[in-house]
Amino acid sequence: MKPSHIEHIGIAVKNLDESIKYYQDVLGLECYNIEEVKDQKVKTAFFKVGETKIELLESTDPEGPIGKFIEKKGEGIHHIAFAVDKIEEKLKHAEDKGVRLVDSVPRKGAEGLDIAFLHPKSTFGVLTELCEDKNK
Amino acid sequence: MKPSHIEHIGIAVKNLDESIKYYQDVLGLECYNIEEVKDQKVKTAFFKVGETKIELLESTDPEGPIGKFIEKKGEGIHHIAFAVDKIEEKLKHAEDKGVRLVDSVPRKGAEGLDIAFLHPKSTFGVLTELCEDKNK
Repeated sequence: MKPSHIEHIGIAVKNLDESIKYYQDVLGLECYNIEEVKDQKVKTAFFKVGETKIELLESTDPEGPIGKFIEKKGEGIHHIAFAVDKIEEKLKHAEDKGVRLVDSVPRKGAEGLDIAFLHPKSTFGVLTELCEDKNK
Repeated sequence: MKPSHIEHIGIAVKNLDESIKYYQDVLGLECYNIEEVKDQKVKTAFFKVGETKIELLESTDPEGPIGKFIEKKGEGIHHIAFAVDKIEEKLKHAEDKGVRLVDSVPRKGAEGLDIAFLHPKSTFGVLTELCEDKNK
């Protein structure tokens, strides 16, 4: 079954406060939560646009994934997350189709979702996250 | 008023056919339209995920915007488009807030939408499109 919607778009930023201000003042979105994901070495600000979240990601460590991304590519869109059911089956299906997995088993991400990444080398340059809300 | 939803996510790809196959076979999405936008020197494939479209963009000219983007950064996510009402007012508001506009006046984009881009230098690295469906 196909993904139900874009769960979120992850955007790497250098300064969370300044970029929150832009999304609020220019685009008119409201930041409803700020959360630190220690595992990923980021502080994240969340906005809702229709059924999709914008997640601004500020690195808390230059050696973390967002710190390295900004060092290499600068600020910008980091990944897209698709909301799916049965995430384990989806990962198995992707692997069977020859896709390289970053996470072969789902792990806990922001907001308690089960998440797993597909490697951008296998997805035409797009770091792709699958995520499932098993609490809903 | 804030954007109602993410209208689409634009993704720059080198080969439309190969990447369509990935989005169909791995993610289970269905390509419902392929359209050439001569003005932008691209061929575009459309998929729907909930209320958001994925638009794969293959350059038809190395000197076009997608050709240059891939030359510089490689394949990957190119821009995000927010669905808005009263696009002219939104552009004026963004300009008043100090945002540099790529298009100070909306122009016609794919699927007949009125579109305008904000410059990534003013939007923390994210090429940002506003778009309005005036036919709805």
